[in-house]
Amino acid sequence: MRMVDLIEKKRDGRELTTEEIQFIIKGFTDGSIPDYQMSAFAMAVFFQGMTERERADLTMAMVESGDQIDLSAIEGIKVDKHSTGGVGDTTTLVLAPLVAAVDVPVAKMSGRGLGHTGGTIDKLESVAGFHVEIDKQEFIDLVNKNKVAVIGQTGNLTPADKKLYALRDVTATVNSIPLIASSIMSKKIAAGADAIVLDVKTGAGAFMKDLDDAKELAQAMVSIGNNVGRKTMAVISDMSQPLGYAIGNALEVKEAIDTLKGNGPKDLEELCLVLGSHMVYLAQKASSLEEARHMLEEVIQNGKALEKLKVFLSAQGGDGSVVDDPSKLPQAKYVVDLEAKEDGYVAEIVADSIGTAAMLLGAGRATKESEIDLAVGLVLKKKIGDQVKKGEPLVTIYSNQENTEEVKAKIYESVKISKEKVDAPPLVYDKISR
Amino acid sequence: MRMVDLIEKKRDGRELTTEEIQFIIKGFTDGSIPDYQMSAFAMAVFFQGMTERERADLTMAMVESGDQIDLSAIEGIKVDKHSTGGVGDTTTLVLAPLVAAVDVPVAKMSGRGLGHTGGTIDKLESVAGFHVEIDKQEFIDLVNKNKVAVIGQTGNLTPADKKLYALRDVTATVNSIPLIASSIMSKKIAAGADAIVLDVKTGAGAFMKDLDDAKELAQAMVSIGNNVGRKTMAVISDMSQPLGYAIGNALEVKEAIDTLKGNGPKDLEELCLVLGSHMVYLAQKASSLEEARHMLEEVIQNGKALEKLKVFLSAQGGDGSVVDDPSKLPQAKYVVDLEAKEDGYVAEIVADSIGTAAMLLGAGRATKESEIDLAVGLVLKKKIGDQVKKGEPLVTIYSNQENTEEVKAKIYESVKISKEKVDAPPLVYDKISR
Repeated sequence: MRMVDLIEKKRDGRELTTEEIQFIIKGFTDGSIPDYQMSAFAMAVFFQGMTERERADLTMAMVESGDQIDLSAIEGIKVDKHSTGGVGDTTTLVLAPLVAAVDVPVAKMSGRGLGHTGGTIDKLESVAGFHVEIDKQEFIDLVNKNKVAVIGQTGNLTPADKKLYALRDVTATVNSIPLIASSIMSKKIAAGADAIVLDVKTGAGAFMKDLDDAKELAQAMVSIGNNVGRKTMAVISDMSQPLGYAIGNALEVKEAIDTLKGNGPKDLEELCLVLGSHMVYLAQKASSLEEARHMLEEVIQNGKALEKLKVFLSAQGGDGSVVDDPSKLPQAKYVVDLEAKEDGYVAEIVADSIGTAAMLLGAGRATKESEIDLAVGLVLKKKIGDQVKKGEPLVTIYSNQENTEEVKAKIYESVKISKEKVDAPPLVYDKISR
Repeated sequence: MRMVDLIEKKRDGRELTTEEIQFIIKGFTDGSIPDYQMSAFAMAVFFQGMTERERADLTMAMVESGDQIDLSAIEGIKVDKHSTGGVGDTTTLVLAPLVAAVDVPVAKMSGRGLGHTGGTIDKLESVAGFHVEIDKQEFIDLVNKNKVAVIGQTGNLTPADKKLYALRDVTATVNSIPLIASSIMSKKIAAGADAIVLDVKTGAGAFMKDLDDAKELAQAMVSIGNNVGRKTMAVISDMSQPLGYAIGNALEVKEAIDTLKGNGPKDLEELCLVLGSHMVYLAQKASSLEEARHMLEEVIQNGKALEKLKVFLSAQGGDGSVVDDPSKLPQAKYVVDLEAKEDGYVAEIVADSIGTAAMLLGAGRATKESEIDLAVGLVLKKKIGDQVKKGEPLVTIYSNQENTEEVKAKIYESVKISKEKVDAPPLVYDKISR
């Protein structure tokens, strides 16, 4: 088998066999297929796409390129949730204790990552003492005991995907549905998920700006998952504005606590109930989505979800009492309201741009070396569709620097006010399960 | 400027500016743009093509990537001829002395190369003493004195093209009209041509099997040439079977001598007159194609073309007397006729395959290190459309090895005989000049 022939085959729109795809991924991982052939191949895939079968094969070839986490020692069906990413996305912090409270095992491997705020681990580290440096056995024991634990990234998972992603990033081949879908799915599968709930974001603040593209990506990932024996479904949700109100690490932990108490932002609560119901249903802890949702609403009302968060934080060294007293979380030195300059209705909150404002405060990492300030960030006081009067607070800024002129300018630039009445966007556009 | 953005621009079908194309070729040549980006770019060009302006810019960027031959010291308009290659193509050996005999300067830089037979230099070296190791000043003086000289490849011409071609070869991006056209044209322009006559071959033995593809390539090259100020035209000629009768080095020199005497194969003579007329016309030595053709027919009839070959060979150390006595050329030890096994009409002579038969005898190089046997090769006795009787000679084999069973099998496989009458294919399909 020669790589040049396989590039030509894909270039000409013919379907590659399972063996051919394995040959490509194996050769690329061990270096016998050079980058310059792989990038030409990726560009051919960009133009010619891949069949459902090819996508499943590509995903499994990448899974098999490295270590795979064995979660079989954990009782029950392990359901993982993945979000394609957005601004102020606090769902993981809410969902982990929420579904664990109804006995769905949550064995989460998580990262730090670059972005407007930190990753899930950074956010959780806002709680004094909390840490994810636990070994695999402790991780499994904790999940079996408490139904929820989080561990830092471990092992050499999907090295083919890491190498391919780095190459795609510099060769204008990121934006290919088969390559994006197999990249995401390979990581979830290698991390040991039995079933997967995907939260595919769409709108100005999402990777997929366009609803049709988001649906196509969701469909591609759901097909891959089901074709390789992992029950998978996707929710297409709105990211035309940030989800919830908080953008920042400790601020999002506080928002998660509020939500688990039933006092959180309505959009965040609703999306967590939708995603959570599907997780509970795929974990076979409920016989219908309605039943699953009812169970989740119940554990919010009776305090069991909040109690589960406390147990989870304490089990990994964290100060569980923050759940009762969120003022124990890191606090910013300066808290300033930014006021509306005119009357009207909020028409747009450019999520990317507001996220950048949070990063300027220190809430996120611009490079791998950046230090995160866990206390700082933004809390929205208005969302799209809300009426606003001149002088009313639009956004509260939590900062450890006195001068926030640059941040303020960025926020004013991001929040557009219209004289006309504006409708709030829908929260969930579609669900795809087959 | 970042290469990844330029790849994306081309990927999305947008036109690159002159500066962007120069940035790409300069960076690729000096190594600051890595192979993996260039191969992704080439694949994007494969799918999205290039505008006429982009093709001209790409050609000139490759010309400017290395040395350019300055032929300004040679009087008159220097017209170069280029063939896209085929089997038994003796046109250069005929055309060089033929057009020189009507005072069109022929300053030819030529190579050896891989293939079924050697390159023009290998063929000329069949003449005892002939050599191309002359310096640039001698080369220019010879052309000014005799109107014709050949020099071996000199200087660092179009290094960008060499590097890009090697990369395309292993990334399935050879077959792209803009890339093929700019590759060929950059070499001709760097070699100093003022005007260019292209012989684009089509049919089973050619790179462009299909007439429409050949026309598209011809059109692309003609546009590039004229857009960068080189008068350029193309003839689309037949390569469904070998041109002329001879396939082999000394055998083709003998065929060229015959043709210059007016006794050569009719197809070879006709194609040389067509290509030659255009060369003479572009060199402004005639005011019409008819006049040009008449001039060429005249120098064949009056012996001046043959005399020019003798002068040319002698001037570069060769034994000019071979022109009068071709038996002085290297002779093969075994000369065997291969006889037809049945009555009928020659329906097909698979040029590729018959060329391989010649290479098996030693007429060409399989690898750069192969030694060529100048004496050996094949002479066709029949061409497509000819009637043939069982036992009549089909092909004469000139060999230095006694056992030629493999070669014979290859020839029988290549020459298809039909019971039905078959028409000879046309020689010239089209001409493109703008």
